[in-house]
Parts: sequence; structure tokens; C-alpha cells
Amino acid sequence: MRHSPALARLIDALHALPGIGPKTAQRMAFKLLQEGREGARELSLALTGALSAVGRCQQCRMLTEGPLCLICSSDTRDTTLLCVVESPADVVAVETSASYRGRYFVLMGHLSPLDGIGPEQLGLAQFETLLAAGGVREVILATNPTVEGEATAHFLSELARKQGLRATRIAHGVPMGGELEYVDGGTLAHALLGRQSIY
Amino acid sequence: MRHSPALARLIDALHALPGIGPKTAQRMAFKLLQEGREGARELSLALTGALSAVGRCQQCRMLTEGPLCLICSSDTRDTTLLCVVESPADVVAVETSASYRGRYFVLMGHLSPLDGIGPEQLGLAQFETLLAAGGVREVILATNPTVEGEATAHFLSELARKQGLRATRIAHGVPMGGELEYVDGGTLAHALLGRQSIY
Repeated sequence: MRHSPALARLIDALHALPGIGPKTAQRMAFKLLQEGREGARELSLALTGALSAVGRCQQCRMLTEGPLCLICSSDTRDTTLLCVVESPADVVAVETSASYRGRYFVLMGHLSPLDGIGPEQLGLAQFETLLAAGGVREVILATNPTVEGEATAHFLSELARKQGLRATRIAHGVPMGGELEYVDGGTLAHALLGRQSIY
Repeated sequence: MRHSPALARLIDALHALPGIGPKTAQRMAFKLLQEGREGARELSLALTGALSAVGRCQQCRMLTEGPLCLICSSDTRDTTLLCVVESPADVVAVETSASYRGRYFVLMGHLSPLDGIGPEQLGLAQFETLLAAGGVREVILATNPTVEGEATAHFLSELARKQGLRATRIAHGVPMGGELEYVDGGTLAHALLGRQSIY
């Protein structure tokens, strides 16, 4: 069925959101334009507000308002640790684990030469400046355990080595609560290679 | 983890969309504010555009631009049939079935006195005016097969009866391609009651 132009445009814009199919986009558009419409107005205002207010932290590239993010401007974080992640969602994930008190560096992607994403797009000049400024003693590489994430981690570890810093990679292995039987071979191989002595 | 105010507001506005949980809303917000940001700008513009351009069809209450919707302003539709549905998505569903060539009346909800939704909120004065204008010979009640939908259909059938019009209810029964074994008792009871002679 053909929708009117403004409605079709809204459905297309919603369809472009991650994980939203055409049918869900249509349901959302109808919902937004039915009774009240406060939701649509609020979403439009929130988008405009966020587009103008939210930028990148000058130090770690995390999405934030103001020059520094809440983590970089906090004085209770351990400034000797720097955890490198691919995306803001990864920062949220590590923070939620409540097991890390250092700072972050957010790449906003991973090295992918075919897509034109090189060291420049990931802000690696900024990363080197941060390391050269001193204070950091260990770089924790927490990029995703994918081919691109591993390559990016390797590249970053070389940058850290040049500055005489310790670089570590987060452990890959069997997830907690999982069963060996259902774990894939690659993960099991990593789990065996990365085995640690108990005493 | 605490987000900055503009980011938190955007996540909340996205969380208010139907079927979007807090985690998906966060993923969407990060995606919208990362590289490019064209998606965020386009969504904001599409929302503003739709809010100002999209209104209700004066005749059938469908979401549309201009005074009449594409269906009401078409001269190839059968104007003697009027199909009453609860929402714009239902119009799309019936149109997709390609089995109906009449016009629609969109209630934008169902009778629900406890929520303050009565005949006025469903535009039933408009519905009666439409019937009184003549031309319609059959009112097809296609509200949802729920308690509220059935009550609404009953109420509407009385309105049609007062004007001496034929009112019909869409058939309820076993869905095509389904298996009797997995159909619930209520649906089976409807299927038996609504049985039709084959010859």
C-alpha cells in the first residue's frame, strides 16, 4: 500500500535505525502520529538537542557533552590504566561489570582498510599523544574478538610497545555459566592456550 | 552507568517507541550519534515534517496529508462498502490482502470506558454522518477479535441498524495453513459456530 510522502519518509528514517525492519518502522510511525503525538515531538527535540550538544570527549573520544566525559573528568579513576574499546556501548558494558576503575579510549570502529578505516579514522594520533603525555602504565586492549578486532589490538600493542608501555589483551575463553559441550572450537582453543595455573 | 543529559534524554525518547527496550534504545542512540549523523538529522527532519504535514482524513480518519486520504479520494473504489478498523496498520493489512475494494473508517482505538475512550474519541459522530449521507450499503466490522473489539463491533452494528444498513462481521476461525491440533479452543468454537455449507 502506498503511503503519503511525509509518512513514507518517516517510515524510511525509522527503518534506518539498527535492528528495525520495514514492518516495525511502519508500526512506530503510526504510533508516533496517533493520539497525543508528545512522543514524536519529544523524540524530534531530543534528536536535535543531542545532535547539537553531544560531541566527543577530547581525551577518550567517548560521546559526551562538554570537552571531557564524566570518566575522564573524574578524579577517582586510576589514570595509570587505559582500556581501549571499539564503541561507546563497550564502555557501558565494561562499566556495568564494575571490575575496572581506569580510563578508556574509544576507537569508534576497528581497522578496516577495505572500508577506508585506517589509523586516522580511529584517532590513533590522539591515542599516541595520550600515551606520550605519560601517566599511563598499562594499555588494556578490549577490542572485539573478531578478525578485525584482533588486528586492531595487534596494531595498538605495537604503538604501546614503541612508548615502552605494557600492553595486555582481555582474556578469551569459555564464558561463565556456559557449558563446554556447546562452546565452539575456536573459543575452546583460546581457553586452553590461555590456561592459568591455579596454585 | 550515567549518561550525559542530552544523551539520556535521547535514549529515553527512543525507549518510548513501541517494542524498544532500554538496551536497544541505547544502541540506537549511540549509532545515531556516531559517524556521519545523517541518520539522526534525517529522522529529526522526517519527524518534524510528518508532525506538521500528516493529519487525519476528513472522511475516514486515516493518517494522511491533505484533506482526503488516497483511498477516499480515489474514484475506483466501491463506495457502497465501508470497512471499520481499529488502526491505520489494519488498513494496510486489509489492503495487502488485495481482497477488498471499498472504503474504510479508522476508529483509532476501541471502546474502553475505563481508559476514557468512548464514542466521541472514536469519531462515531463522524461515522454516523458518513452513514446518513447515503451511498453506503454494507458496514463491514473488522475490529480486532478481542473483548474490546467485539464490544466495539456490537456498538457499531447498532448504529448501522438504526440507519437501516446491513452490518457484517469478518469471519473468525482457523487461520489458513494452521493445524487444528494447535488452534485454541475459543477459535475452534468460533470456527464451528461460523461453519458454512459447501454446496
